[in-house]
Amino acid sequence: VVIVGAGFAGLATARALERAPVDVLMVDRANYHTFQPLLYQVATAGLDAENIGRAVRGIFQKQSNFDFRQAEVDGVDWGTRTLLTDGPPVPFDVLVVAAGATTDTFDVEGVAEHGLFLKTLWDALALRSHVLRQFERAAADPRVIDEGALTVVIVGGGATGVELAGAFVELFGHALTKDFRHHEVPRAKVVLVEATDHLLDAFGPAARHHALRTLQARGVDVRVGAVVDRVTPTSVHLRDGTVIPAGTLVWAAGVRASPVADALALPQERTGRIVVDDTLRVAAHRDVYVVGDIAAFRLKDGSLLPQVAPVAVQQGHHAAAQIQRAFAGQPARPFRYRERGSMATVGRHAAVVELPFGVRCTGSVAWLMWLILHLVTLMGFRNRVSVFLSWAWNYATFDRGSRLIVDPSEPWTSS
Amino acid sequence: VVIVGAGFAGLATARALERAPVDVLMVDRANYHTFQPLLYQVATAGLDAENIGRAVRGIFQKQSNFDFRQAEVDGVDWGTRTLLTDGPPVPFDVLVVAAGATTDTFDVEGVAEHGLFLKTLWDALALRSHVLRQFERAAADPRVIDEGALTVVIVGGGATGVELAGAFVELFGHALTKDFRHHEVPRAKVVLVEATDHLLDAFGPAARHHALRTLQARGVDVRVGAVVDRVTPTSVHLRDGTVIPAGTLVWAAGVRASPVADALALPQERTGRIVVDDTLRVAAHRDVYVVGDIAAFRLKDGSLLPQVAPVAVQQGHHAAAQIQRAFAGQPARPFRYRERGSMATVGRHAAVVELPFGVRCTGSVAWLMWLILHLVTLMGFRNRVSVFLSWAWNYATFDRGSRLIVDPSEPWTSS
Repeated sequence: VVIVGAGFAGLATARALERAPVDVLMVDRANYHTFQPLLYQVATAGLDAENIGRAVRGIFQKQSNFDFRQAEVDGVDWGTRTLLTDGPPVPFDVLVVAAGATTDTFDVEGVAEHGLFLKTLWDALALRSHVLRQFERAAADPRVIDEGALTVVIVGGGATGVELAGAFVELFGHALTKDFRHHEVPRAKVVLVEATDHLLDAFGPAARHHALRTLQARGVDVRVGAVVDRVTPTSVHLRDGTVIPAGTLVWAAGVRASPVADALALPQERTGRIVVDDTLRVAAHRDVYVVGDIAAFRLKDGSLLPQVAPVAVQQGHHAAAQIQRAFAGQPARPFRYRERGSMATVGRHAAVVELPFGVRCTGSVAWLMWLILHLVTLMGFRNRVSVFLSWAWNYATFDRGSRLIVDPSEPWTSS
Repeated sequence: VVIVGAGFAGLATARALERAPVDVLMVDRANYHTFQPLLYQVATAGLDAENIGRAVRGIFQKQSNFDFRQAEVDGVDWGTRTLLTDGPPVPFDVLVVAAGATTDTFDVEGVAEHGLFLKTLWDALALRSHVLRQFERAAADPRVIDEGALTVVIVGGGATGVELAGAFVELFGHALTKDFRHHEVPRAKVVLVEATDHLLDAFGPAARHHALRTLQARGVDVRVGAVVDRVTPTSVHLRDGTVIPAGTLVWAAGVRASPVADALALPQERTGRIVVDDTLRVAAHRDVYVVGDIAAFRLKDGSLLPQVAPVAVQQGHHAAAQIQRAFAGQPARPFRYRERGSMATVGRHAAVVELPFGVRCTGSVAWLMWLILHLVTLMGFRNRVSVFLSWAWNYATFDRGSRLIVDPSEPWTSS
């Protein structure tokens, strides 16, 4: 069994195969799992990058039927049942595609060149470094503030955009205000741009209201019903003609299936997700399962399941179970998603939680639930302790962790 | 007062000026201080990179006469007393040059292109990533082991080389043996190459003997009296004709003053260090102090002070005191180095310590002293707690921390 991708779906599949009489080989271009829900905290200097990454081999050190291959999947030879990679080819009997999703810029002019993203650890480090570098530029020459150097525009009012906006105003208002006390930090601005008329599309009215009110009260300039037309290195142009001078543009607006979906040349829907039947398999290849963000699983009402962690985990478990049933000669069972609810954090003492059966809450209680859930689902005891201590520190001191500018796109070397 | 460099010498100078009636501006190309003595642990996956770096502005948050500028110094205009940088120029009244040192390859063929170094956080991440990537390559295709993919050659038997060699064999023998249990990790090798006939030149015979014996007992192939002739991407050629197939070459053999010394065009000695008088000032400019690794301070016996942290800290304090005396119209006093001893760790329960008055020890006691001293001198309460917990974890479990491959020279991005 070859699993492509070390995200939530891939990990869940591999772990559920622990006692199955199969050899599991996981393939990923990185040698580590990224806990994506906390990427925004790495980008806003709340956590160290390595706190939310964990080496895949370390995770499965005790699972004897597991092995790993670091490689990028370029294609597939269905005849010989072999994945083509940037390294040696990888033959498979059963294939589980769990390669996840990437950012979709919708071909908006300038976004791919000048925008920053939040899908990988590199993205998070690049974003943090870029924003801090703007502050250093402004400290050296305050005139750049007039050109928007200290303005961060976040496009996309979903959970990622809301969480980032809330975390940036906190970073600016506390840690950076102290760091740059001789300089004009109060002129730093966070603008959250959303094309629809509300934030947090996946949530109900109470949650949307709480998020909007909280962000506005904390100083975020929220602009709903605003569509980005094009982007330059120093400005964001909206379709209504507004120009926002901004040194930083974060694009959190669109999601597209990983390029692995294209490489496999399987039937895809509009955003690149691979079409699966109700057993999570593709029509043409009955030994190929697709799970997580890269799968297009259509519900009876015609809608697609959302690209969120609980879906990925449940689909991973389901695929693993079907693989074992197939080995035992039993027919595959249809996948049924059990709604687990959703949550997003807006900042200190502010979050929104929606659970099944209409349980909803906002504010401090929701915030505590968010903290606990993320701590518990984070991979590895060591990471959990680090993150817990970082959070306790940040909470007690209003300070932030690592404010190192370590932009992988502009490293300097010693030699 | 402008201080160039945020290493031990620069920090010591700035802190000692806390109550002086001056404005302090520190300039560094990075926005953080790197705790260099622990870089080797980042390279060998014992610590996270961000545990040993700390934002300069964070360190001096409470020092009201302090400000920082992130910039690279390219030159100086002595007429207007202005530093030329990659950003706006920086005028100064008093200049403290504390830009440290970099690696010297002695122009050995291939080292600059194929060698890895250990002077910056990037170097440490690049080295860790490179070595782990070799293991991933070997897992995908074991034939590369015959070509030396799993052989790490470390050139230079000083403290850095000894510490690295000891830490690599531990990493290979425990964490990586478990990670790569289906593969041929036991064929991984660490070779320590030293040109003189002994390790740890700065230490006495007992310490040298302990380091050599311990490393050999733990599996390091120590080759003294071996001089590197040239290096290719896959091999190290010694002057005696020996060829060592090796996928990794770490160059820890030579130290050269930072390029800032060249940019300032002040009189330098052979390895680029700026020549200072006994008050740490340069002859031509009486308001220019040079401290730390970049200073060439000659003792009465004609030798230069070593490029180590205790010298840097003491010189920083001394320069700060002379700056204050100059403001008060008092003459400068000569610098006198107080020997503090030296220590190096070889691995678990093994280190060498030499203190003044002939106090020497090796083994477990020395190792504990090393741990405590490094924990205490590490910057920042938060980093201290992280490092302490990491060490406790590593010690108890034989596990290692972050084994993420995050090579800044080969990042992949999400978009």
